[in-house]
Amino acid sequence: MTRHDGRTPQQLREVRITRNWLDHAEGSVLVEFGRTRVLCAASFTEGVPRWLKGRGTGWVTGEYEMLPRSTNTRGDRESRKGKVGGRTHEISRLIGRSLRAVVDTKALGENTIVVDCDVLQADGGTRTAAITGAYVALVDAVADARARGLIAPSAEPLTGSLAAVSVGVVAGEAVCDLDYPEDSTAETDMNVVMTGEGAFVEVQGTAEGAAFDRALLDRLLDLATDGCAELTRRQQEALDAPARERVL
Amino acid sequence: MTRHDGRTPQQLREVRITRNWLDHAEGSVLVEFGRTRVLCAASFTEGVPRWLKGRGTGWVTGEYEMLPRSTNTRGDRESRKGKVGGRTHEISRLIGRSLRAVVDTKALGENTIVVDCDVLQADGGTRTAAITGAYVALVDAVADARARGLIAPSAEPLTGSLAAVSVGVVAGEAVCDLDYPEDSTAETDMNVVMTGEGAFVEVQGTAEGAAFDRALLDRLLDLATDGCAELTRRQQEALDAPARERVL
Amino acid sequence: MTRHDGRTPQQLREVRITRNWLDHAEGSVLVEFGRTRVLCAASFTEGVPRWLKGRGTGWVTGEYEMLPRSTNTRGDRESRKGKVGGRTHEISRLIGRSLRAVVDTKALGENTIVVDCDVLQADGGTRTAAITGAYVALVDAVADARARGLIAPSAEPLTGSLAAVSVGVVAGEAVCDLDYPEDSTAETDMNVVMTGEGAFVEVQGTAEGAAFDRALLDRLLDLATDGCAELTRRQQEALDAPARERVL
Amino acid sequence: MTRHDGRTPQQLREVRITRNWLDHAEGSVLVEFGRTRVLCAASFTEGVPRWLKGRGTGWVTGEYEMLPRSTNTRGDRESRKGKVGGRTHEISRLIGRSLRAVVDTKALGENTIVVDCDVLQADGGTRTAAITGAYVALVDAVADARARGLIAPSAEPLTGSLAAVSVGVVAGEAVCDLDYPEDSTAETDMNVVMTGEGAFVEVQGTAEGAAFDRALLDRLLDLATDGCAELTRRQQEALDAPARERVL
Amino acid sequence: MTRHDGRTPQQLREVRITRNWLDHAEGSVLVEFGRTRVLCAASFTEGVPRWLKGRGTGWVTGEYEMLPRSTNTRGDRESRKGKVGGRTHEISRLIGRSLRAVVDTKALGENTIVVDCDVLQADGGTRTAAITGAYVALVDAVADARARGLIAPSAEPLTGSLAAVSVGVVAGEAVCDLDYPEDSTAETDMNVVMTGEGAFVEVQGTAEGAAFDRALLDRLLDLATDGCAELTRRQQEALDAPARERVL
Amino acid sequence: MTRHDGRTPQQLREVRITRNWLDHAEGSVLVEFGRTRVLCAASFTEGVPRWLKGRGTGWVTGEYEMLPRSTNTRGDRESRKGKVGGRTHEISRLIGRSLRAVVDTKALGENTIVVDCDVLQADGGTRTAAITGAYVALVDAVADARARGLIAPSAEPLTGSLAAVSVGVVAGEAVCDLDYPEDSTAETDMNVVMTGEGAFVEVQGTAEGAAFDRALLDRLLDLATDGCAELTRRQQEALDAPARERVL
Repeated sequence: MTRHDGRTPQQLREVRITRNWLDHAEGSVLVEFGRTRVLCAASFTEGVPRWLKGRGTGWVTGEYEMLPRSTNTRGDRESRKGKVGGRTHEISRLIGRSLRAVVDTKALGENTIVVDCDVLQADGGTRTAAITGAYVALVDAVADARARGLIAPSAEPLTGSLAAVSVGVVAGEAVCDLDYPEDSTAETDMNVVMTGEGAFVEVQGTAEGAAFDRALLDRLLDLATDGCAELTRRQQEALDAPARERVL
Repeated sequence: MTRHDGRTPQQLREVRITRNWLDHAEGSVLVEFGRTRVLCAASFTEGVPRWLKGRGTGWVTGEYEMLPRSTNTRGDRESRKGKVGGRTHEISRLIGRSLRAVVDTKALGENTIVVDCDVLQADGGTRTAAITGAYVALVDAVADARARGLIAPSAEPLTGSLAAVSVGVVAGEAVCDLDYPEDSTAETDMNVVMTGEGAFVEVQGTAEGAAFDRALLDRLLDLATDGCAELTRRQQEALDAPARERVL
Repeated sequence: MTRHDGRTPQQLREVRITRNWLDHAEGSVLVEFGRTRVLCAASFTEGVPRWLKGRGTGWVTGEYEMLPRSTNTRGDRESRKGKVGGRTHEISRLIGRSLRAVVDTKALGENTIVVDCDVLQADGGTRTAAITGAYVALVDAVADARARGLIAPSAEPLTGSLAAVSVGVVAGEAVCDLDYPEDSTAETDMNVVMTGEGAFVEVQGTAEGAAFDRALLDRLLDLATDGCAELTRRQQEALDAPARERVL
Repeated sequence: MTRHDGRTPQQLREVRITRNWLDHAEGSVLVEFGRTRVLCAASFTEGVPRWLKGRGTGWVTGEYEMLPRSTNTRGDRESRKGKVGGRTHEISRLIGRSLRAVVDTKALGENTIVVDCDVLQADGGTRTAAITGAYVALVDAVADARARGLIAPSAEPLTGSLAAVSVGVVAGEAVCDLDYPEDSTAETDMNVVMTGEGAFVEVQGTAEGAAFDRALLDRLLDLATDGCAELTRRQQEALDAPARERVL
Repeated sequence: MTRHDGRTPQQLREVRITRNWLDHAEGSVLVEFGRTRVLCAASFTEGVPRWLKGRGTGWVTGEYEMLPRSTNTRGDRESRKGKVGGRTHEISRLIGRSLRAVVDTKALGENTIVVDCDVLQADGGTRTAAITGAYVALVDAVADARARGLIAPSAEPLTGSLAAVSVGVVAGEAVCDLDYPEDSTAETDMNVVMTGEGAFVEVQGTAEGAAFDRALLDRLLDLATDGCAELTRRQQEALDAPARERVL
Repeated sequence: MTRHDGRTPQQLREVRITRNWLDHAEGSVLVEFGRTRVLCAASFTEGVPRWLKGRGTGWVTGEYEMLPRSTNTRGDRESRKGKVGGRTHEISRLIGRSLRAVVDTKALGENTIVVDCDVLQADGGTRTAAITGAYVALVDAVADARARGLIAPSAEPLTGSLAAVSVGVVAGEAVCDLDYPEDSTAETDMNVVMTGEGAFVEVQGTAEGAAFDRALLDRLLDLATDGCAELTRRQQEALDAPARERVL
């Protein structure tokens, strides 16, 4: 049995990670999972929010938003509606929580990194693409801060790497990295965030239609583990290759 | 090794389910998991939101909110802040999604049920208590609607039962139904929503500190499965016992 | 002539005052006037709002809100609507102003007490029940603060007691403590807040239909005076009886 | 004993009522109580809000707001703060309720009148000046609608006249029509809205400092009755005199 | 060819500038361009916004808003809608920017002047009337501050005078100071703010219908230059005449 | 005298126009003026807003927003602040107004085109880049609609082309297409929108420091005219070249 775009069940879409897509941001990545395109900008700022001051620890958070015409049909801007929707909040919180799982905030010192993940084009898997790209932007922002002497040479704020992928059941079959047509018909849908060492950071599974049993859950976790491992390799390749010079 | 309140790892807190705690609501439950106390009110209304009209299907959703002094320190009201916070949104969405997993919206007809889950007192596990109570309120609201002829005698909008529990790792040990002192120190935290038949509806696991491996994930899912099974029994007992008469 | 529930014109509904209904709040009361049920939680905090700092005086305020299904038909949450309605504002202000009338803010010291009055079930008279319950919660919160050494033994922040009742003209007859069916058909409606010594703190009368003359106003004030005196006795009985121990 | 501006206890400030101050509004009044200056604009519109449609009755409401520099110190605009404050809500509701007490909405037909009361300069008594001016603007708007054939010649939407005054205790003495210096030091403060026939529409009394007894309440009501009667005469004089022609 | 109200193309409407229309505001002007009537209140406050502190410079800004019934048809209040509209923002920014063009903020010292421009009645040209009146109110506020010793005798915060007028093409002819009937049918519309010395501060031209060529632009700028010169004379006359005494 | 990046006064930065940068949008352009990078997405929808229904005319509007890290220092999202800022409103309105100047809404039929202009990277001139790109996206969206039969073959909704450029005085010299370092030190700043035929659509000039005289205004308009003509050529080249195929 084949997927609508010819992929095997465990196969990812084409992944592209373009570093330093922006000039101002300390780290930035245009990440693409097939047609899904997310711009991840990591902003490094000295100092921390008021509630953290004086503790010697830093802060890392994320913000997610979709451009109005990233989707097939135009959506209204949340800024015009005057309020941030539940889905946006939920994904922003997921991104921040996930990034903090691989950050040693003590080693970061009293500095803040905000990673903005703006979806330029959506075709399913925007949150997992965002996390996968955000990690690479984070690495570059930390390196930039270190180069500018804002992080001590001996300090290592990053304790591991981070990748994320969606898995789900489409037309009765467990598959990895669902695109929008798959996602919108999936019976079960799970987003999994893992470290480069294969440990789980977040597991969020939802029965869209029928509830799922333990065997299926296990099958999905296997797929996600393989998918994240592959994404970890792609991130490493991107980080090993020379990045575009930022124009300052 | 013992938990701070003397429970065994798999042991739930004292669970109390009081039906028809309110008079106006078609179904209502005051659910208590130890000191956590959530008022679940299911409101049945004829008709559906505009975007569903004319399709012959109903709608079920949930709203969650905490009273300002449900917590140890008073929190500001979201109504005064003028916006609903991310956590509130996230949990409201979880409740609604979970309830819809056991509802046949065709059988419900063009009717809407909103289940409001207001936390009167919080001591950990408010979202799982809310879901567990909301299901019972939903059953009563459906029965009330059927008694009033708003749902056909032959239609069965409920396709199963629903319970939820939190599991996590506290001081290195996997435990079930965390209270606030446990929750605030947990290394890993997972909320699991299951049907009465033991299938998964939602699995949401988060590494608060270190990422977790597959063996631990499996141990936590085992605990959650047992916990939800026990809660299913308590729900059934509550539904089998006669409920207080509503004063109309 | 009899009222629809058999009460005499001056008769209150059944009044129940349950102290320490919550564990976290320094003072809390579940107050019931018949089916009307309001949860009053008094939160004591050291310090005062910025605009009062350094003057050696404390601050007492109130916040009122109705749960969405406290009413016969579900109402939308003000937090979701993004703004607090006029009625909610008006009643919150009334509660705060009334409480301050029996508080010596100098004796309170630079401390703040917020009394949250959340209507769990509404059947008329929610604002008067809220004030009546809030006073009892305030007494307990002050006692708790004194026991913890946050108020000097010799200081007495409370200068009197406070109770409130509604009076109005229903079917041509002046009656006390209107329930919802009475309130919704009343021609004139008045809310009166009084001290335990029988002095007026607030008098708010509204001609819903025809304007009212001085004789009727006098009759309503007489009824309110008797009603508040009776409520003062019930408050005192509740405060004299031993309260449930809070689980801390 | 004399008041700070030389008035006797029962004496009103200089009252000026200028009709048709605006050209667009169907009725408009610039009302002045001493330095307090409120612009009242009555807008007549055919049709009613959605929730009233098809019942054959009209709707009358009021909106109150203060210009930022109407007060001694500039206040922030509520539009910039993004929310309407409690005091503004409370007074708007009072104005609307009071006006409706002298309107027969059946006779008005399915038409809406909104009376906007914008405080151009505040020196105490803005809400009572607003109501007193709003009534005159309402009379003119009704006459204009009748002249345009929007109200039947035989229909009389106005069932009486309406005036309002503040009374209070300043430096131990009961006085009428408090200006700002008096209002800000008053021990007790009451706003009274009455019909031209001397019946009460609204009575709102507040103990700012000490609670007040029945004798004082009676004294204040006497003063208010006289004050409103005098205002009723001034309104009638203004309505009897020819008004400026609106430039259309 | 004549304009609908008989004016020549370059002729302004009747201009009236009434100083000290308010008592509280340090400077205030009721400015009228024909039926357009704007109340400009300049509030002088010691101190500057947080972001300017310690630089030894002051701040001048403007806020514009329309009363709901200033227009032919009543508009909803922005405070009730919970957000300030784009047009209001745009004009407020224009007023503030224009005023700052004739202010030496160093000479002003660390003081703030906010000029509120509230449109009481609108008949076209409200923004240009607002700027023209705001300048006069600003002069008076500066004089008041100097009289109170808040600005050094030798310091001169005002570097020039400021007036504004609208010009446009109506029925094929370039005209000055458009009223509403002209404005709503204009093909091209331009607002020009100039100093008393004839230099440009703001030029904002918009092709409502067809784009306009350079020759027409030149013709409009000529008209605006003449109109602003005339307004400058009117401002000077108003400032030379004795103003009403403020009642403090 | 040379500009900081070596350009002559009249020289534009490097301009790049990439069509069909997105797959979903009916027309989309990534437009670059040097480092300034704006994503313009034109969304074609059948139907018009409620207030235009039944008139047989279409609607074209624009929305502008900056990504949080488009700027040198990260800015807060307007969606999180809960309100759209004045500058964003002002520019959105400018874009919409400009586009409508070259659209025949009758020929468009009852269809709506929204052009979203999201600034991915800001280095001065974002609004002029946005308008220049938006026009090209608009052309493609109209062509797409025509290809799908939503616009009649004989109808021509576009009446001309549109380009925009900023001009200003930097270090005493009039220059064209200011980048951020120039813009932030400019004494006078003007944005000019013109048709391809050289007529003016919008002229917005602001004296940031000293007011400017007519001779300077003329010089700036000359520069803008040349700049817009050059941009018109670039737009035409982009439209003449084959565009990337959208992946649908």
